[in-house]
Amino acid sequence: MIVAVVGVGVIGGSVGLAARRRLGATVRGIDPNAEAALEAGAIEEAHDDLATALQDADAAVVAVPLGVLPETVAAVLQAAPPGCVVTDVGSTKRAVVAWNGDERFVGGHPLAGSEAAGVAHAREDLFDGALWYLTPTSSTSGLALERLHRLIAGMGAQAAAIDADTHDRMMAAVSHLPHVVANVLVGQAARALGGERLPPTGPSFRDATRVAGANPGLWPDIYVSNRDALLHAIDGTVERLQEARAALAAGDRDALQTWQSDAAGERQALLEAGLTGGAAHELRAVVPNRPGVIADIALTLGRDGINISDMALTPSPDFTRGEIALWVAEGDAAHAEELLVGLGFPVS
Amino acid sequence: MIVAVVGVGVIGGSVGLAARRRLGATVRGIDPNAEAALEAGAIEEAHDDLATALQDADAAVVAVPLGVLPETVAAVLQAAPPGCVVTDVGSTKRAVVAWNGDERFVGGHPLAGSEAAGVAHAREDLFDGALWYLTPTSSTSGLALERLHRLIAGMGAQAAAIDADTHDRMMAAVSHLPHVVANVLVGQAARALGGERLPPTGPSFRDATRVAGANPGLWPDIYVSNRDALLHAIDGTVERLQEARAALAAGDRDALQTWQSDAAGERQALLEAGLTGGAAHELRAVVPNRPGVIADIALTLGRDGINISDMALTPSPDFTRGEIALWVAEGDAAHAEELLVGLGFPVS
Repeated sequence: MIVAVVGVGVIGGSVGLAARRRLGATVRGIDPNAEAALEAGAIEEAHDDLATALQDADAAVVAVPLGVLPETVAAVLQAAPPGCVVTDVGSTKRAVVAWNGDERFVGGHPLAGSEAAGVAHAREDLFDGALWYLTPTSSTSGLALERLHRLIAGMGAQAAAIDADTHDRMMAAVSHLPHVVANVLVGQAARALGGERLPPTGPSFRDATRVAGANPGLWPDIYVSNRDALLHAIDGTVERLQEARAALAAGDRDALQTWQSDAAGERQALLEAGLTGGAAHELRAVVPNRPGVIADIALTLGRDGINISDMALTPSPDFTRGEIALWVAEGDAAHAEELLVGLGFPVS
Repeated sequence: MIVAVVGVGVIGGSVGLAARRRLGATVRGIDPNAEAALEAGAIEEAHDDLATALQDADAAVVAVPLGVLPETVAAVLQAAPPGCVVTDVGSTKRAVVAWNGDERFVGGHPLAGSEAAGVAHAREDLFDGALWYLTPTSSTSGLALERLHRLIAGMGAQAAAIDADTHDRMMAAVSHLPHVVANVLVGQAARALGGERLPPTGPSFRDATRVAGANPGLWPDIYVSNRDALLHAIDGTVERLQEARAALAAGDRDALQTWQSDAAGERQALLEAGLTGGAAHELRAVVPNRPGVIADIALTLGRDGINISDMALTPSPDFTRGEIALWVAEGDAAHAEELLVGLGFPVS
């Protein structure tokens, strides 16, 4: 297997190390600082142009900064051979997915990383046990998705399909918005305290603002790349603050108490939801060989919180249909089967 | 010394234990559950009415819930003898201070507590090293303030004078607002995820929402008791969110980057400010014996972040003036002297 890594920093470098050591892949890299990547063992060939780097490649992983991501993916797709799956590792997905409707492209986002940047911090085991979102679309080829799924599983991560819009809205709510709010809280406290030390009031302020001002070289690009979802999330925050304000202004203790109790319950539910597990169960179904079918299955299961721990796709000799095998947790098997049947694919 | 504790829960009980064991005080308690307080050793006498509990008392500490605090303090002031200092331990101060302009009253707020409620969790050392805010006003008697200062120091805490408005604005910014915002973030995420598990995106969301839904029996009263300052803080948050929104909507990377960097600097400054220390230095000055003078000195030093580690007040024989001795950190001595001189009290 030949894997091309475009942008060999801490993430791209870790992909290189894992693909080489765990999957025996030949890993080629393109990076202005390719020397360091070679030294770290993250790649075994350094290339200057996409055409040679991607020659006969089976997979290409684009791990460049968000600001240049969509155009880099487009250039890689142009240079990549027909059977090569192309993915990226950007932390927002709508923009890059909208830019690149190619059947070989599957957007990706590994929930793994490091405070430290650069290939020197790359690790073979960076993705062990990590969730790795994939955002296939109706134009994505089933074979491309399956190949990428296996590559990711082979590097130790768990692939989970999700549509790009949902992904970005979710990330806005659980990551980007908390960063925005932390900055706001810090700014207000700085003004309220006017240079005095933070009173030792307990951990609420420290906790709430731990991510304030995180990596100013990176976060502005994340905010901008997820602009629509983040604007929507900010509007939602303002709306909810106004609701709380109204209850407070009215001195409505009952409403405030309900609100406070609801928040406790919601947090509990968020932290506990979906903690299912169990042994892997195999499901097989015959599916027509047309673009989007596999993405549809993966997204349908993903939407219901069912994780596909492995996936295999075998096209029929005439390529008109294929047999798909999915492995899901024992506890999810019955539900997954229902969903497959609902999509018109009887499970054998 | 006779100390009356009105409301013997975890805070009131810890006051009782510390006053008895460390200061040899006779501690009387009033509480519907006084049996448990007697058993825990937090009080040695239980009383049913304020008049007997407060007879000949030197100090009274009111540690009842915020919802009934102002009227309880008023009742205690009515029953307390002329020389008795009366304080409370409520986490907001403006309401109770505005209600009670008596010269014997000094509002208080120890920054110590426990997740667990009830006298069974009271501890002699609960206040060791804790900051204990006092909010004297222009009507507060200097002798009352000094006596309370010594009682608090004797229980192991550090008293710091602050005016009630500043206290409440500060608490709104660093404690109450983060609680409100945590509830809002949790509500939004619950809606965005629609029952799905929280993605393992890193600690930002967990940290930012750790206090969401905290103690629904307590927090609504805290919000309401600090209504004005908290409404103002919420308005400030909305304003800052709108500013961030505008920069994001415009795709203004430079503005977002400056904002992100500023937040990093502000947080650093908040956590590092005021970490001065050193040996104690004694300052003595002669002051006129009229209400408000000692409060004025304590507040002036407190505003500049100077902590008074101990205080002694000696009235002159004719009570027209008094000598005050203050102990401050060595590094703060010169500045404290300047401030005293500025107030018209030459240091001897």
